[in-house]
Amino acid sequence: MKDIAIIGIGIIKWGELWEKSLRDIAVEAALNCIDNAGTDRVDSITIGCMSSGLFNGQEHLASIIPDYLGRRGTPATRVESACASGGLAVRTAFMEVASGISDYSLAIGVEKMNDVSGGGATYALATASDYDYEAFHGINFPGLYALMAKAHMERYGTTREQLAEVSVKNHCNGALNPNAQYPMVITRETVLNSTMVADPLRLFDCSPITDGAAAVLITTVEEAKKLNKHPLVVISGIGSATDTIALSQRKDLTALDAVEKAAQRALKMAGKTIQDIDFAEVHDCFTISEIIIMEAMGIVKPGQGGPATIDGLTALDGKFPINPSGGLKSKGHPVGATGVAQVYEAVSQLRGQSGKRQIPNAKTALTQNMGGSGGSSVVHILEAR
Amino acid sequence: MKDIAIIGIGIIKWGELWEKSLRDIAVEAALNCIDNAGTDRVDSITIGCMSSGLFNGQEHLASIIPDYLGRRGTPATRVESACASGGLAVRTAFMEVASGISDYSLAIGVEKMNDVSGGGATYALATASDYDYEAFHGINFPGLYALMAKAHMERYGTTREQLAEVSVKNHCNGALNPNAQYPMVITRETVLNSTMVADPLRLFDCSPITDGAAAVLITTVEEAKKLNKHPLVVISGIGSATDTIALSQRKDLTALDAVEKAAQRALKMAGKTIQDIDFAEVHDCFTISEIIIMEAMGIVKPGQGGPATIDGLTALDGKFPINPSGGLKSKGHPVGATGVAQVYEAVSQLRGQSGKRQIPNAKTALTQNMGGSGGSSVVHILEAR
Repeated sequence: MKDIAIIGIGIIKWGELWEKSLRDIAVEAALNCIDNAGTDRVDSITIGCMSSGLFNGQEHLASIIPDYLGRRGTPATRVESACASGGLAVRTAFMEVASGISDYSLAIGVEKMNDVSGGGATYALATASDYDYEAFHGINFPGLYALMAKAHMERYGTTREQLAEVSVKNHCNGALNPNAQYPMVITRETVLNSTMVADPLRLFDCSPITDGAAAVLITTVEEAKKLNKHPLVVISGIGSATDTIALSQRKDLTALDAVEKAAQRALKMAGKTIQDIDFAEVHDCFTISEIIIMEAMGIVKPGQGGPATIDGLTALDGKFPINPSGGLKSKGHPVGATGVAQVYEAVSQLRGQSGKRQIPNAKTALTQNMGGSGGSSVVHILEAR
Repeated sequence: MKDIAIIGIGIIKWGELWEKSLRDIAVEAALNCIDNAGTDRVDSITIGCMSSGLFNGQEHLASIIPDYLGRRGTPATRVESACASGGLAVRTAFMEVASGISDYSLAIGVEKMNDVSGGGATYALATASDYDYEAFHGINFPGLYALMAKAHMERYGTTREQLAEVSVKNHCNGALNPNAQYPMVITRETVLNSTMVADPLRLFDCSPITDGAAAVLITTVEEAKKLNKHPLVVISGIGSATDTIALSQRKDLTALDAVEKAAQRALKMAGKTIQDIDFAEVHDCFTISEIIIMEAMGIVKPGQGGPATIDGLTALDGKFPINPSGGLKSKGHPVGATGVAQVYEAVSQLRGQSGKRQIPNAKTALTQNMGGSGGSSVVHILEAR
């Protein structure tokens, strides 16, 4: 297998982008990425998007995005695994280059969630659950994650304050990110006094509805060294895994097996352990998610995610910073874009280009993207070389 | 790049499958494929599906299909490029193995179109066009292909009878296919007297709405030789290309540039010319499509597709048989499954296992799958070794 590098990264300011269309934001992020790379060579394009069909009444992004990017003819693929679609886009672009089919492959993540047609954003998102056995009976994602939170609190004594601290910490980081949707510092009281969504999860435990896009350009290490525009960043490990789509079929509501498997696979491929990782971008779609993900990946032992967060382990200046970008909570969560944006942040940090939120001497990063209530997960290991 | 073989193929009887769900038919085709392969090793799964979100209110097939297949944990990806989603699934599974990430990779194509929720099947399909500039203004796919047919008739003198003969020929083949949705012989009069859909295209010029699934299992030639259950079939060429999504942006309504490019790329990779191909499965979503595809791939010169069809060039016993399976018209067109089913047919023929519709001494096959009005296309070259 060829050694793979990321040579370009692009993002846009995320938010409620009423003045821009789905195609606009995908193209804007892609052009920023091509500009960042310093080369406009693109042999193939992969688009990660969860549901442009339900959100925007537009499928066939594999035709429309290359078309509007001025790349008519270029081979293109759209990939989807609910909120893990972006991570899969990076993995697919990796395969394009690793297999030798493409030399330069562009991964774009995009979701335009606000100007939704049809049944609304909550309906569109609910199609990532087992629709016949979950959503049809009235439960949505805040409800599913609330069940996980309740079980975690019951089993491990995880507290409301510990959940709130995940949100406080991520907003603290997001306030340093000019592209974040909600770049404001909040307090623990902000979370604890916010509107109840699904007990015990309140509004500030939940990631928002976001319009956003991000892109990365992938090539071989050999080609990257020729270009030599930025410090070299390689993808040394990729891991993907699935689990039951329905929460009711899991043995343990306080675990995320797909996350555990995906992380183990990526770390094994990179020849690393979790202790070798300097920081991570993880899928904090709800505050409880970040806590269980920390435990599933072995950053802390089961039940220690909450206390470790309170103790500052995962803060920007902690021993294992998590979500320096602000995470899904503060940066926003345009579902198909999130996994690509995680890789954007990892590369930016590893290059030393993250400004006020830069983690000093970061050499090895992990990104973890997740679909549904953990029915799928994609993990990447990135390294500065 | 590793040499790639197909060691298992599976399909189900296509039609209006009211008694089966989306997950049922995907799993049934996959199990048939695994049984056919004689090994149950599956390292990764790719699902080609155009719009389970709009048709079935169910995204996240990359979680639900492995789950219901009894393959929890297995890495999975759903790919989409409208009606070319199945071809992309085979291409992506090819990359899984060619890159060394997977040794055995399963590609499943599926679409459950009849029990559609929301705006109906015509709405769901219309999202494969440029929704803002085409479908929103009232034109749907029969209308778009009717424009292409009118232009082709005007420019080259293509006749209604020539269009009808595509349908007659494909039904003649499909009548020999036990898995076809409409396995009945028809006459030219059946087509010419059928209900007008979009002038000049009548009901029997149009592929039907179908529930269906198909699957193929891919590994290295080295592994395939160890198993040695069936005659060896390799994928020697893959080609993918895109074009403008909107028909109005094309230079020429009588050409299909994405088809031409995808075929050229696949043939180049295989070291072949179109003259080396023994038969093809092509994307006859409408009768005019098959005629323009023949011309775009160089089987005949522009304008000669209609006359060549009347002359029997593409009949089962002709010099260049096209759609021995019955094609989309007779076999059916469950959009995300079609590209995988084309490869199923090619492998079946190259193995000499196609029964009454077997093409004698077929050694080299081409499959051509297409999205929208030609906004994307995927071509594979397969060879008996």
